[in-house]
Amino acid sequence: MPAPTHIFTPPFNIVRASHVVLDVTDLGRSRAFYEDTIGLHVEDADKDAVYLRAVEERQHHSLVLRRADGPSCRRLGFRVGTQDDLDKAAQHFRELGLPADFVEQPYQGRTLQVSDPEGLPLEFVASMVRREILLQKYEHYRGVRPQRFDHVNIFAPDVQASLDFYAGLGFRLTEYAEEDGPNGRIAAGWMHRKGNVHDIAFTNGRGPRLHHFCYWTPTALDIIHLCDVMATTGHLANMERGPGRHGISNAFFLYVRDPDGHRLELYTCDYQTMDPDHEPIRWSLRDPRRQTLWGAPAPKSWFEEGSRFHDLADREAAFTANVLVAS
Amino acid sequence: MPAPTHIFTPPFNIVRASHVVLDVTDLGRSRAFYEDTIGLHVEDADKDAVYLRAVEERQHHSLVLRRADGPSCRRLGFRVGTQDDLDKAAQHFRELGLPADFVEQPYQGRTLQVSDPEGLPLEFVASMVRREILLQKYEHYRGVRPQRFDHVNIFAPDVQASLDFYAGLGFRLTEYAEEDGPNGRIAAGWMHRKGNVHDIAFTNGRGPRLHHFCYWTPTALDIIHLCDVMATTGHLANMERGPGRHGISNAFFLYVRDPDGHRLELYTCDYQTMDPDHEPIRWSLRDPRRQTLWGAPAPKSWFEEGSRFHDLADREAAFTANVLVAS
Amino acid sequence: MPAPTHIFTPPFNIVRASHVVLDVTDLGRSRAFYEDTIGLHVEDADKDAVYLRAVEERQHHSLVLRRADGPSCRRLGFRVGTQDDLDKAAQHFRELGLPADFVEQPYQGRTLQVSDPEGLPLEFVASMVRREILLQKYEHYRGVRPQRFDHVNIFAPDVQASLDFYAGLGFRLTEYAEEDGPNGRIAAGWMHRKGNVHDIAFTNGRGPRLHHFCYWTPTALDIIHLCDVMATTGHLANMERGPGRHGISNAFFLYVRDPDGHRLELYTCDYQTMDPDHEPIRWSLRDPRRQTLWGAPAPKSWFEEGSRFHDLADREAAFTANVLVAS
Amino acid sequence: MPAPTHIFTPPFNIVRASHVVLDVTDLGRSRAFYEDTIGLHVEDADKDAVYLRAVEERQHHSLVLRRADGPSCRRLGFRVGTQDDLDKAAQHFRELGLPADFVEQPYQGRTLQVSDPEGLPLEFVASMVRREILLQKYEHYRGVRPQRFDHVNIFAPDVQASLDFYAGLGFRLTEYAEEDGPNGRIAAGWMHRKGNVHDIAFTNGRGPRLHHFCYWTPTALDIIHLCDVMATTGHLANMERGPGRHGISNAFFLYVRDPDGHRLELYTCDYQTMDPDHEPIRWSLRDPRRQTLWGAPAPKSWFEEGSRFHDLADREAAFTANVLVAS
Repeated sequence: MPAPTHIFTPPFNIVRASHVVLDVTDLGRSRAFYEDTIGLHVEDADKDAVYLRAVEERQHHSLVLRRADGPSCRRLGFRVGTQDDLDKAAQHFRELGLPADFVEQPYQGRTLQVSDPEGLPLEFVASMVRREILLQKYEHYRGVRPQRFDHVNIFAPDVQASLDFYAGLGFRLTEYAEEDGPNGRIAAGWMHRKGNVHDIAFTNGRGPRLHHFCYWTPTALDIIHLCDVMATTGHLANMERGPGRHGISNAFFLYVRDPDGHRLELYTCDYQTMDPDHEPIRWSLRDPRRQTLWGAPAPKSWFEEGSRFHDLADREAAFTANVLVAS
Repeated sequence: MPAPTHIFTPPFNIVRASHVVLDVTDLGRSRAFYEDTIGLHVEDADKDAVYLRAVEERQHHSLVLRRADGPSCRRLGFRVGTQDDLDKAAQHFRELGLPADFVEQPYQGRTLQVSDPEGLPLEFVASMVRREILLQKYEHYRGVRPQRFDHVNIFAPDVQASLDFYAGLGFRLTEYAEEDGPNGRIAAGWMHRKGNVHDIAFTNGRGPRLHHFCYWTPTALDIIHLCDVMATTGHLANMERGPGRHGISNAFFLYVRDPDGHRLELYTCDYQTMDPDHEPIRWSLRDPRRQTLWGAPAPKSWFEEGSRFHDLADREAAFTANVLVAS
Repeated sequence: MPAPTHIFTPPFNIVRASHVVLDVTDLGRSRAFYEDTIGLHVEDADKDAVYLRAVEERQHHSLVLRRADGPSCRRLGFRVGTQDDLDKAAQHFRELGLPADFVEQPYQGRTLQVSDPEGLPLEFVASMVRREILLQKYEHYRGVRPQRFDHVNIFAPDVQASLDFYAGLGFRLTEYAEEDGPNGRIAAGWMHRKGNVHDIAFTNGRGPRLHHFCYWTPTALDIIHLCDVMATTGHLANMERGPGRHGISNAFFLYVRDPDGHRLELYTCDYQTMDPDHEPIRWSLRDPRRQTLWGAPAPKSWFEEGSRFHDLADREAAFTANVLVAS
Repeated sequence: MPAPTHIFTPPFNIVRASHVVLDVTDLGRSRAFYEDTIGLHVEDADKDAVYLRAVEERQHHSLVLRRADGPSCRRLGFRVGTQDDLDKAAQHFRELGLPADFVEQPYQGRTLQVSDPEGLPLEFVASMVRREILLQKYEHYRGVRPQRFDHVNIFAPDVQASLDFYAGLGFRLTEYAEEDGPNGRIAAGWMHRKGNVHDIAFTNGRGPRLHHFCYWTPTALDIIHLCDVMATTGHLANMERGPGRHGISNAFFLYVRDPDGHRLELYTCDYQTMDPDHEPIRWSLRDPRRQTLWGAPAPKSWFEEGSRFHDLADREAAFTANVLVAS
C-alpha cells in the first residue's frame, strides 16, 4: 500500500486523443465506407474533404478524409485543456528543437502542428466547432453504432524511445509487452491521458506508420452485426482480424481495413486507469493470450501492414522481436 | 468555438468516487445479497465487517458492510491523487471550519475523514491495499457481473449550495434539472471528477441522505439477467425501478434495494466528459424523458426513501420542486 | 413417465400463424411506422395496400396494410400444409355450419376465408408467392430487426369456448391462467401448432377483438434499441408496455401501438413445445409474475383496448376475472 | 407459387433429436467440464453414469456420460410421438433387415435401439421421466446457459445414401453443399423434424463418426462469455473453432472439445423450416461463406477428427470433396 507521494506534472495538459486526418484516393468510396458501413455521421463535406463524427462526440469531427493521389495518414489529433496549453506545447516542442507551427484549420480554429522526434505529425487543439449532441438522437445510430473516437496505435522503430518521449508529455503506461529475461526489450506499450487503457500505443515495427485508429462501440453485439453486414455486402476482404477478446485491454474488438487499406478498430469495454497508483500490466511476448485471449492468431498482414505518414520516411525496427507483437 | 482560456485548479486532487461504508442489521444476510445475488467479490470478512470489490477494481474494497443495530450510511469514500493531496484536503476543510481528522482504516491506511457543510461524512484515501486483478479471471464473474464502483447520489436539502461547495472541490457539472422560467431553481445536478457523467449527484429532497450508490456492469443483458434472477429467487420486492434507459446520463439502469433498504444502482454505458469545454446539459423539470427516456414513471418510494447518514439529522428540502426529481 | 399412446389427428393440418391484414386510416403514415421505425421490409405496395415481411420470411408478406376509413383487423392468416388441407378445412367449417369461401388473394393465390363460431375472420393458405431470402442480406436489417411473424392474441368473450374450438383444429395448449378454487374459470390460454409457445392466444375480455400480433426479434438488445429510437423520434406515446420478461412464455417483450392503435408485440426467446407429452403450465390469476416476471404492472389500456374486427360486433366477456388477465 | 399437393407420410413420427450417450474415460473430469464450465444441470449421477439436461428441458436428460475405458459415442437419441410410433419404428427397421431391439433404459423406460444401414446406433423413446421446469429458475443458469439440445452432426462415408435413408424416416432437407457442375456430388446435408435447420446433419468423411452434438444458448453474448471463461480457466486448448456466424443455418456458434475430445457446439438463432414448401438452400463447395459467413477458416482438426461409435468400424468417404466440408 505504498501511496503515491507526488504525480508528475506534464509540460502542458493533453486531455485525450481526438481525431485523425487521412488521405484517401477515392473520396466518395471512402465516405460511403465510413458513413454507410461503419455508421459514422457526416458533419460536413466539400469536394476535397469529408468530416465525420460519432454519436457521443460534440466536437465537429473525429475523422477527416481528404482527397489525395495516394493514401497516407496526415495527422494525429489530440485535445489539450486550454489555449494556454497550446502555447506551452509550442514552447515545449521548440525547446526540444522540434517543429511547432500554429495554423488555422477548418472547424477547429487555432491548431498547433508539431512533429515528435521520429517525425510523427501531431496536431493539438483546445476546442472545435461544437455540433448538436446526437447521443440521444437514436435514429442516427447506424452500422456498428460508433460512439466515440478512442485511440491510435503506431508502428514504432524504437518503442522504448517513443514511450519515453510520450511519458514526458504526461502519457501514462497501462500495459506493455516485453521479451523475457534480464535484458528483455520492450516491444509494445499502451499509454493513456483520458483514464482508460490508451490514447496512443506503440508497437515494434517498421515505422513510424499508423497501425490503426479506433472507435468505441456500445456493445459486442454491435460489432457482431457489423461482421454480418460486411460479410454480406462485399466487404469480406475488409475484415482483417476478429472479432475477439484482447488479452491486453480486455476489450472486445474487430479490425477492418478501409478502401485504401487504412486500418480501423472497433472496440468496447476496456477499463479505468485514472488512479495515480495504477500499475502497468506486463505481458511476456511468449504469452499467446496477450493479443487474443481466445487464442486465435492474427494474420500476417496485421503484423506487417500499416499506413505511412505523408512525406515521412519509415525505417526498420531497432530489433526483431522474437514473437510478433501489437494487440 | 470559444476555446477555454483556463481551467479552475482545485485545492486538492480528487480522482474519483471510490467506496461506500454501510451499516447493516444482519451481516450474513447482507453479505449473501451482495455476494450471491449481485455478484460482488468478498475480499475479506470478519465478524463485524465484510469488504467487497468488483472485478475491475484492484483496490481492496469498494463496499464495506458493517454489523450495526440500525441501517445507515457511515461514509462516502473518494480517492485523491497523493498523500500530499490528503494534507491539502485537511487544510482546505479546516480553513472552512469543517471537521477533518486523520485515522487509520483497515486495508486503506491513512484516511482523512471530513464533513461537508451539510454534515455529509466523507473520507479521502490516496491508496488502498492492492489485490490481484480479477478482470480476466472470468470464473469470478457472477450475478450482474459488477465491474467497478461508479458514483453516489445524495438527497440534498439545498441542491444549489451542495453544487457550489463541490464545485469548489473541483467537481464539474455535466447535467442538471431545473424549474422553467426566469427564477427557476435547480433541483438536481450531476458532477464528475473521473471523466464520465458523475462521481456524485445531488437531488432535491429531505436530507442529507444517501439516495443510492452505483456499480457499472459490462452490458445491458447482465442487468436483464439480474432481473430474471431476482424475480425468481424471492427478491421481487427488492427490484424498485427499471430496467430502463436514463434520459440523464443515457445509461441503461436498474435500481434495487438491499435487505436493509439501501439502494443500489446497476448502470452501463454513459459517456465521456473530460473535455474542459464540456457543457452541462439542462433538463426542464417538465421533461418526462429526463428520468426515464422510455417514459415509465419511477415509484413513489424512489423519490422519497433513502439511507440516513449515521448520527446525522436530516431536514426538509429548501423548496418543493413542482415535479419530483432525481434520475 | 406415462408415455402418450396416441396423438389427436386434426381434421386438417395447420402449420403456423402466417399473417395479419389490417385496415389503416393513413396508409403512408402506417407504412412509415412499420418500415422505418419497426424495420419490416416492404415487398410490394400500391395505392390501396402495402405488403411487408420480416427478414427470415420467404413468403411474400406477413403483414398487409389496407387503406380504409376506419381502423380494424380484416383477417388473421394461417398456413396449412397442402391444397388438400384447404379443401378439408372448407369441409370442416361447412360441416359445423360456419362460413367458408374460396377467394383469390394477391400474392397468395387460392385462399380459404372462414369465420370461427365467434365470427373471428380467418384465412388459410397453402402457399404464397416466394421472394428472395433476406436472412443473410444483413443490410436489410433495420429498426428492431424483426425476424419472423410469431403469433396473434385475441380478446375472447368466452375463453373456454375458444380454446375448445381451436383444440378441435389441432391447436395444443401450452400455458393458461385460471381462477383459483374448485370452480376456477379459465381466463386465458396460449395454443400452438408450430412448436413454440403459441400461434394464437385467447384472453378474457370484450370481444372478439385483436389484442395484438407479434414479431420475433433476434435479441433483447434489438428491442432495447427500438425503445431508444421510439422514445427519441416522437413515438414515446406509442410505447405501451415493457420492455420486460413475460412469466408466461418466458419471452423478453415490448408492446407498441401503431398510428391507428393496432398493437404490435416484439418478442424473443420463448421455448419449444413440440413433444406430444408436453404439459401445459397453469398460472393462478393471483400470481403477479404471470404477466411480467419482474413485477411491473401493465397499463389499463393494455387490458382494455384492442382492434375490432371489420364488420364484427363484439360483446362483453362471459365473466369478469377477479384479476385482469392476458400476458 | 406451386402449392404443395401432398406431404410425405413417414412410417413413424420422429419429433426431434433428444439426447446423446457418450463414453468418457474420467467421469469426474467430464462431469466437471459439462456442469461447471458448460453449465448443464446434473439431474442424477451414480458411480458409472451422469445424467445432464439444459434449463428448458423437462425430460430427465439430454446428455448421458458413462464411465468407460475408451471414449466413444454409444447412442444418438430421438423422441418419437407415441408408444405406437415405437412399435411402427421397430417394424420399419426390421422390414429393412436392420437391428431393432426393445430395452429398458434408466429414466427413459421403454427404448427402441436400432442401427441404420451404416451401423449408426440410434435409440427412440416416446417419453422420459419428467423433472421440474428450470426455465424460470434463473439461479440455475450457469456457464454458457445452455437452453436445450438441438442436433447431432455425423461424418458419413456416403452422404447421399444417408440423406436418402433419413428422408425415408421423414427428415426433411434444409441446406446442402455440393460440388459444382452437372455431376456434382452432394458433400453435406442438414435435415430436420422439429422445424428449425436441423436435428441431424451428415458431412462427407471417414465414418460413421460423431462430428458433434449441439446445445442452443439464449444469446451470442452467452457464447462470448464462455470463451472468456474457457480462455482463463485452463481450457484454451478446448476451444476449437469460433465464435462466428455460420453461413449454413445463419446461427452464431462456437465449437469446443470435451476432455475426451468429444465435440460440442454452442449455437443460437437459426430459423424456422416447418412450411411444407420450404425449399432447401444449395451451397457451392467453392463458397467460403458456407462454413463461416465472416471468412475465418476452420482448423484441420475440425475437418478430420470425430468421435467413433462404440464397436463400429468406420471407413473412408466414398469420394474426396474438392473442398473440405461440414459447417
